[in-house]
Amino acid sequence: MLIVGELINTSRKAVKQAVDEKDAASIQKLAEQQVKDGATYVDINCGTLINNEEEILQWLVETVQSVVDVPLCIDTPNPAAMKVGLSTCKNGQTMINSISAEKERFETMLPLVKKYKCKVVALCMDDTGMPDLAEDRYPIIDKLAKDLVDAGISPDDVYFDPLVKPLSTSNQAGLEVLATVRYIKQNYPEFHMICGMSNVSYGLPQRKLLNQAYLVQLMTEGMDGFILDPTEKRLMSLFYASQALLGKDNFCMNYLKAYRAERLIV
Amino acid sequence: MLIVGELINTSRKAVKQAVDEKDAASIQKLAEQQVKDGATYVDINCGTLINNEEEILQWLVETVQSVVDVPLCIDTPNPAAMKVGLSTCKNGQTMINSISAEKERFETMLPLVKKYKCKVVALCMDDTGMPDLAEDRYPIIDKLAKDLVDAGISPDDVYFDPLVKPLSTSNQAGLEVLATVRYIKQNYPEFHMICGMSNVSYGLPQRKLLNQAYLVQLMTEGMDGFILDPTEKRLMSLFYASQALLGKDNFCMNYLKAYRAERLIV
Repeated sequence: MLIVGELINTSRKAVKQAVDEKDAASIQKLAEQQVKDGATYVDINCGTLINNEEEILQWLVETVQSVVDVPLCIDTPNPAAMKVGLSTCKNGQTMINSISAEKERFETMLPLVKKYKCKVVALCMDDTGMPDLAEDRYPIIDKLAKDLVDAGISPDDVYFDPLVKPLSTSNQAGLEVLATVRYIKQNYPEFHMICGMSNVSYGLPQRKLLNQAYLVQLMTEGMDGFILDPTEKRLMSLFYASQALLGKDNFCMNYLKAYRAERLIV
Repeated sequence: MLIVGELINTSRKAVKQAVDEKDAASIQKLAEQQVKDGATYVDINCGTLINNEEEILQWLVETVQSVVDVPLCIDTPNPAAMKVGLSTCKNGQTMINSISAEKERFETMLPLVKKYKCKVVALCMDDTGMPDLAEDRYPIIDKLAKDLVDAGISPDDVYFDPLVKPLSTSNQAGLEVLATVRYIKQNYPEFHMICGMSNVSYGLPQRKLLNQAYLVQLMTEGMDGFILDPTEKRLMSLFYASQALLGKDNFCMNYLKAYRAERLIV
């Protein structure tokens, strides 16, 4: 199970400010806290800073790497920034966030996945956009799986992201992704999956509640990676409980460890 | 979706005391609160009072029925008490909790299900006991389904209870029931399912957290009835969120209604 901590993102006001002020300590604190709270990867996203993304990305990677040992997830659609980010990473196996079946994105990112031997998030979308229906995601998944394996990428390094969409615009939005997760688990068991939950609750009240329930639903269907805020104690509490209930936590040891660390809240 | 409020049970100290004192107001308050918080049935269980179960059951049924309109779930393995309870019920379609594939229980309860045209909880156990494995539950389900239908019971009135067992005694306990839920959904789509969650967390800390996660997991697999404490706000919040995410709440209307009533907590 992969937990990518999402907090270092310049779309968040506090992070933007820390970056503007080159306040390394604030960034490092965010990285350390996420790892302490369970992140196995730390996401780095400064895509809002289009004028100097490459320079800031390099600074963020160096700043974070100087305090945490977990590998990083470089989160940008910009190939030049991705290249700078990857060449700066030194903690374990870096993750690329993301490739997709969009022709240009696939062709520019693939050589980087290969060169840096990365894990890679593969978005279930192509040049026609982000599908609403599960059945429209399936051919994209089939194509991505084939093209990535043909290019020599190990299925174990690929994390399909089914692309969660808002429940507020369609009653079926949650179900379509759950169906996609089942499809991937059944047809591509040697691959992995990852997603963020927060889009599902867009436009509805008590968003965290919906995100929490959706985390458990996705885990039940076989999702084995999440991009989330690991400092959200209740979300992580449900994560530990779900893992135990799904038989993925021998003797509930991680659950009990989280309990003893006072990290489980009801 | 069926929510059976479980609080009127003489194994609970406050209920035992209210019964001993014939304190109708306290019992009625419990019934009203459960209905207010979402119960569609109210469970009545005084099985701990073996000496005068019949008399107390009749009093409880009358006491509760005088303040709530939802139907009751008569919860006893004692056929004589069940008969008294059923003959006293007058709110809608009563539920019998429970029948099973145990020979004597099946033969004594079946005539009552037919006579009073009840819904019935069908426990997935027989005279050899409560199975640990999903695959040992399947033949019991097959037998119950056949015998009940052969006896003229409508599948729509049957709620299989897969019997949740403690995770603390087996790492697979949660999974075995989830597999059973999938089996029933796939093979007996015209039947229903119901269960309580609390056994799953027996012997572990932060039990409510495990029960909450398990509720969402069971709903994801297709469970469509629960015996629970509807006054647990956090559990019910996850229930409303899950229903919406599973496409079973048009335009999230029940979710939004619960929100406006300040019943959703994160």
